[in-house]
Amino acid sequence: MRKIHVIGIGAGDPEQLTLQAVRALRGTDVFFVLDKGEVKADLVRARRDMLDAHVEPGSYRVVEARDPERDRAAGGSAYSPAVGDWRSARADIYERLISEELGEEESGAFLVWGDPALYDSTLGILDEILARGAVAFTYDVVPGISSVSALVARHRTGLNRVAGPVQITTGRRLAEGLPEGVDDVVVMLDAHQAFRRYADQDIDIYWGAYIGTPDEILVSGPLAEAGPRIERIRAEARERKGWIMDTYLLRRNPERG
Amino acid sequence: MRKIHVIGIGAGDPEQLTLQAVRALRGTDVFFVLDKGEVKADLVRARRDMLDAHVEPGSYRVVEARDPERDRAAGGSAYSPAVGDWRSARADIYERLISEELGEEESGAFLVWGDPALYDSTLGILDEILARGAVAFTYDVVPGISSVSALVARHRTGLNRVAGPVQITTGRRLAEGLPEGVDDVVVMLDAHQAFRRYADQDIDIYWGAYIGTPDEILVSGPLAEAGPRIERIRAEARERKGWIMDTYLLRRNPERG
Ligand SMILES: C[S@@+](CC[C@H](N)C(=O)[O-])C[C@H]1O[C@@H](n2cnc3c(N)ncnc32)[C@H](O)[C@@H]1O
Ligand SMILES: C[S@@+](CC[C@H](N)C(=O)[O-])C[C@H]1O[C@@H](n2cnc3c(N)ncnc32)[C@H](O)[C@@H]1O
Repeated sequence: MRKIHVIGIGAGDPEQLTLQAVRALRGTDVFFVLDKGEVKADLVRARRDMLDAHVEPGSYRVVEARDPERDRAAGGSAYSPAVGDWRSARADIYERLISEELGEEESGAFLVWGDPALYDSTLGILDEILARGAVAFTYDVVPGISSVSALVARHRTGLNRVAGPVQITTGRRLAEGLPEGVDDVVVMLDAHQAFRRYADQDIDIYWGAYIGTPDEILVSGPLAEAGPRIERIRAEARERKGWIMDTYLLRRNPERG
Repeated sequence: MRKIHVIGIGAGDPEQLTLQAVRALRGTDVFFVLDKGEVKADLVRARRDMLDAHVEPGSYRVVEARDPERDRAAGGSAYSPAVGDWRSARADIYERLISEELGEEESGAFLVWGDPALYDSTLGILDEILARGAVAFTYDVVPGISSVSALVARHRTGLNRVAGPVQITTGRRLAEGLPEGVDDVVVMLDAHQAFRRYADQDIDIYWGAYIGTPDEILVSGPLAEAGPRIERIRAEARERKGWIMDTYLLRRNPERG
């Protein structure tokens, strides 16, 4: 029976790989690498470097494929259906890779950025392929350090306050309003700096871009003051590198030290 | 200047240590181990085993201290103040350990269960000690795999659904009501199976106890059916081992496959 590892590889710092992930890398015959286009070439290279660092050369194969283009134009309330189509298109590609490139007795792996549990479609896609029933395999998941954990570690702060809740959400959601009943909110996938809307509230922001990489940038402070600074720094960095990945924690009603 | 590492060591599986954590362990002169009483002796032993596995014997010292008793009787709305007192009592102990047991040029470390960012007081305590100003040190944080990441990896599911938010909260909060506007909720620190209250709703539960250890137990399914099973299994396990650590994800309005 084919076996697949879904391996969380951390969100930027190659040292944030776990021992379990290293062991899974070493037990893999075929790595599937999905290229998401030019801007993400750096992330593909990061995965290659990890294999070079931890796995015996010649003991594995790498199979590359082009990711389907997501229909970003759909936007708005059409977001979920568009994601669904894209997921099925991706499932087609993964299904073909698994059946054609992975031998019956071999182990394959998908290297997932951060933690496979957060805003990643790999598990959903594998479940969709299994449900189709055309190719059989078992899979396991190796958790990884998410960009969320990496963010707050670098800021040396917690996600929640004493006995309080924390919510992890998207920029798109944040643009619709701050969630109710929770004062600590982590925002991912925000291309439009949705935090701007809340600059008049008593909120601290802990922001990080390219966390864990040599390009890492960290900014924190009261939103009214730090927000405009982040917008400027973010625009410059994005311009310079051609792409950006950033995440932030908003902390409402912070205790002022 | 004294240096302190706050090292997330994962939530049960010793292989979920990161390479960064192993490096930090090896660069540490003094490990501070706080014993939380008989029931947690297993967790203290897990930390000792990690040092044995990864650090040269004789290259470090271990300093043990007894954790102050938290005033659990306070309960109810008095929870936060009681935690505050307990935190100060703990800060007294940590402050003494750092100033008396750690040389000016040495590195110390606290080994934190899971990820130091989730429901852990170490960072808050270190900040309190620094604010007091009696002993000077710098500290950094090594993120760890949380029990939350470990839980969903073992269940091979994500934390959020496509583009949706996820909230992490406590049993105490859940007992007051399900959070608004979020359909995926992770519950920690629940001594009273607060999920019982929601058995009449269309919710799936993904539950795990002693995740990542040889005693690991996983149960999932629709809450109405799986809930009573979890209660029984949990009571038996707790009786047998003398203590239990469990975490679960509640998923409202699940898509039924
Ligand atoms: C598709 S999600 C994947 C998240 C990933 N599974 C994780 O656990 O971090 C991509 C988002 O993660 C965040 N992200 C990932 N890596 C990051 C990094 N190194 N620095 C800052 N944000 C990062 C950004 O918010 C980005 O929009
Ligand atoms: C004080 S909190 C510390 C959480 C820790 N910092 C983390 O990242 O997992 C303790 C709670 O974590 C959860 N927990 C920790 N380890 C666990 C494990 N191995 N299995 C299940 N739950 C665990 C339980 O909900 C427990 O009540």
